[in-house]
Amino acid sequence: MIIDVHGHYTTAPAALGAWRELQIASLADPHKAPRPGDLEISDDELRESIETNQLAKMRERGCDLTVFSPRASFMAHHIGNFQTSSAWAAICNELCFRVSALYPGHFIGAAMLPQSPGASTTTCIPELERCINDYGFVGINLNPDPSGGHWTSPPLTDRYWYPLYEKMVDLEIPAMIHVSTSCNPCFHTTGAHYLNADTTAFMQCLTGDLFGDFPTLKFLIPHGGGAVPYHWGRFRGLAQELKKPLLDEHLLNNIFFDTCVYHQAGIDLLTKVIPVKNVLFASEMIGAVRGVDPQTGHYFDDTRRYIEATSNLSEEERDLVYEGNARRVFPRLDAVLKAQGR
Amino acid sequence: MIIDVHGHYTTAPAALGAWRELQIASLADPHKAPRPGDLEISDDELRESIETNQLAKMRERGCDLTVFSPRASFMAHHIGNFQTSSAWAAICNELCFRVSALYPGHFIGAAMLPQSPGASTTTCIPELERCINDYGFVGINLNPDPSGGHWTSPPLTDRYWYPLYEKMVDLEIPAMIHVSTSCNPCFHTTGAHYLNADTTAFMQCLTGDLFGDFPTLKFLIPHGGGAVPYHWGRFRGLAQELKKPLLDEHLLNNIFFDTCVYHQAGIDLLTKVIPVKNVLFASEMIGAVRGVDPQTGHYFDDTRRYIEATSNLSEEERDLVYEGNARRVFPRLDAVLKAQGR
Repeated sequence: MIIDVHGHYTTAPAALGAWRELQIASLADPHKAPRPGDLEISDDELRESIETNQLAKMRERGCDLTVFSPRASFMAHHIGNFQTSSAWAAICNELCFRVSALYPGHFIGAAMLPQSPGASTTTCIPELERCINDYGFVGINLNPDPSGGHWTSPPLTDRYWYPLYEKMVDLEIPAMIHVSTSCNPCFHTTGAHYLNADTTAFMQCLTGDLFGDFPTLKFLIPHGGGAVPYHWGRFRGLAQELKKPLLDEHLLNNIFFDTCVYHQAGIDLLTKVIPVKNVLFASEMIGAVRGVDPQTGHYFDDTRRYIEATSNLSEEERDLVYEGNARRVFPRLDAVLKAQGR
Repeated sequence: MIIDVHGHYTTAPAALGAWRELQIASLADPHKAPRPGDLEISDDELRESIETNQLAKMRERGCDLTVFSPRASFMAHHIGNFQTSSAWAAICNELCFRVSALYPGHFIGAAMLPQSPGASTTTCIPELERCINDYGFVGINLNPDPSGGHWTSPPLTDRYWYPLYEKMVDLEIPAMIHVSTSCNPCFHTTGAHYLNADTTAFMQCLTGDLFGDFPTLKFLIPHGGGAVPYHWGRFRGLAQELKKPLLDEHLLNNIFFDTCVYHQAGIDLLTKVIPVKNVLFASEMIGAVRGVDPQTGHYFDDTRRYIEATSNLSEEERDLVYEGNARRVFPRLDAVLKAQGR
């Protein structure tokens, strides 16, 4: 079985974007404020958007199940205030839930949180609980920089985030650490901000002792861990300078990397450097890089091909990357699969 | 011959730091302002600081020559205003010049610029010209984020930077794109901010057309290019989405990567993915990662060992990485070496 732990609903019907445009316009002119009920998307429209896109590619590539969350770049937590994010997150999460209900064998949800710069993280908990308890979601996406590229929130090791971690531990859900669109002109969203955030989050955890406080907390760092595996020697050396334990002990019981690295040499490095138990299959399809690689004739984001081709993994290890690790990191996913007899 | 294109004077005598402390204190209390002449460091003190540190390690590792610039994390362009940076850069550059004069076969300078957030880049030109024309320096370090982790300057493709580029082209000098210390608590200086800046700078160049305007401009991206080589497929794919030319043509006549990657798998990836002509030997010794790797028994930053051990380079290609590429990217270095009969 092949589980893709990193998929976003990037192909939602256009009505969703139109609703968001109205919501943004209403920040300047409250008369324009749309109500949640103004958004009407039928099940057929959802099916059309999924079957011709994600599900078609999953079938082509042999992927069975995707952990599916709202489009990351559209979270845009920097827009408006908590109420803005709250209404937007509720709508986006509900759409992902409806997709998971239409295709229970193929999609299962992960929640976007209604984060807002400066707002207490406790404000996110009702939506989080709704998604886990009512929608059967199995994880969340946590944005370490709700300012959108200005990095005005405290590091992930700060107690600011602890209410969320307490809830995550209670509910046994991991968080993918995933920023949203950059409104800082220095940072291209998918070419710089995403990768920088991955590296930044890892180093924040390295310098702190967060997992001393939360031994069962789990973070999934997307995009192959940003720069981290390529600079694994640097991070091992920095941990040593900072008198931290070895990374295996200090971080690798709690931090995991996905395989959203879009060429063979990158996957070869990832699977050589990072212990197999810490690598989870993912493609972020359909996402930032949608084209066909002229060097291979295959989609850049068809990461299964790289996993199949790497000489670093035995068949047993490949199964861990495809399925076993995901079932361990997402216990609620494992429970759903078992209930489905899978 | 082995040229290390990335060395900083991280071991300067303590009097330098004391002078800087006074300068910083004088921002609140101008009576404390030190004069440049207050700093007294003898040639013997310089020799001691170099011979027991950088030069000793260069001899151990078989490195002949280091392109030597002021300590990157101490540039701290966010402190004070242009006058602050101007006085500090002048002092730091002069020390590197004195080291190069004491050891003309082993060190040659690259300049720190007196950047300051919001100040016109033309203000850096007098110090730049002094370093190149009077001190015989062969390159500069350009900080894409003089705010120190708040990223308030425009991207490197913006015309804000063009006066510097025009001068660089005139003088035939490359710039290493190197940030300084982070004063944003989200970013660890050497574990996140440095690598993020490398990735960010590359992506800024990818989205723009800077080298259309300056076909001979050369940027050296340190720390092995941040996350870029590990995500080379992602960057090729993003260039394709953005309708840019292939990266070879779009960027690789102008952008080069150093080898400051502190483990074998990282150097293997770098030398596999990036064309040999774009890779320049460097160690950033003595720098961010000073310890011995318990897995190898050798210093993490002894990058020559990884270059020697990689199976990706022929002897001829290794010579390009060690020497030939540096002589091409730094024409003034090549001229000095030729004048020395090397």
